[in-house]
Amino acid sequence: MACIFCRIIKGELPSFKIFESDKTLAFLDINPLSHGHTLIIPKHHGVSLTDIPDDSLTEVLSVAKKVALAVKAENWNLLQNNGRLAHQEVDHVHFHVIPKPNEKEGLGVGWPQMKVDMDKLKSYSEEVKSAVSKL
Amino acid sequence: MACIFCRIIKGELPSFKIFESDKTLAFLDINPLSHGHTLIIPKHHGVSLTDIPDDSLTEVLSVAKKVALAVKAENWNLLQNNGRLAHQEVDHVHFHVIPKPNEKEGLGVGWPQMKVDMDKLKSYSEEVKSAVSKL
Ligand SMILES: [Zn+2]
Ligand SMILES: [Zn+2]
Repeated sequence: MACIFCRIIKGELPSFKIFESDKTLAFLDINPLSHGHTLIIPKHHGVSLTDIPDDSLTEVLSVAKKVALAVKAENWNLLQNNGRLAHQEVDHVHFHVIPKPNEKEGLGVGWPQMKVDMDKLKSYSEEVKSAVSKL
Repeated sequence: MACIFCRIIKGELPSFKIFESDKTLAFLDINPLSHGHTLIIPKHHGVSLTDIPDDSLTEVLSVAKKVALAVKAENWNLLQNNGRLAHQEVDHVHFHVIPKPNEKEGLGVGWPQMKVDMDKLKSYSEEVKSAVSKL
């Protein structure tokens, strides 16, 4: 049992819990980007979001809303990273609620827009739509 | 009716739809950060996540999983921005599924960690826990 979030769920490691239910745990990030930075995790262990059954995810967004209200965030980001390249650091799915009180604190968002060909995007959308319908 | 996402939902504006149900719509972002960049929106209009009833959010994460699989993203970010400071550009709640194929494309993540006092974090967690329990 090497997963630190599973150990937090089991109570083997301490955490600053703010919400807990059968399926879901929320606790303050101890390396926050801003005051109120919180992690929400499904208790079901999985590395990527696609590894978690839908049934274990039903409360996550409801808890995110509550956290945002409780920490009194006006501007904030909800972020869930999958994979090292995408900045995932702990291999148990977690959702960050990150208040953005000013330019300096909170999540830094880089937005490198691509040029796209609309005809190619249209035909790609049909391909993706077909793939989604088979899942 | 100025909201462009509500107009997309009504079919008054075109979009590259890949999933649609009573509650939820997903379509390709026409200003993508990477190939496969998709937006998932609740059909219920609201500016911030806290404005959307839980019942209108129940499918979002399930659809995000399907989109990530359909666009064959290995590394990817799920991002939902609330407020201009947090990089929200359209005032109708939307979740970005953004593949991260390499360092250059996809979401740029800036991570400015704060120094924190663990005793203060502990007492703050008790305050937030109490606030969450009243919501
Ligand atoms: Zn785990
Ligand atoms: Zn709208």
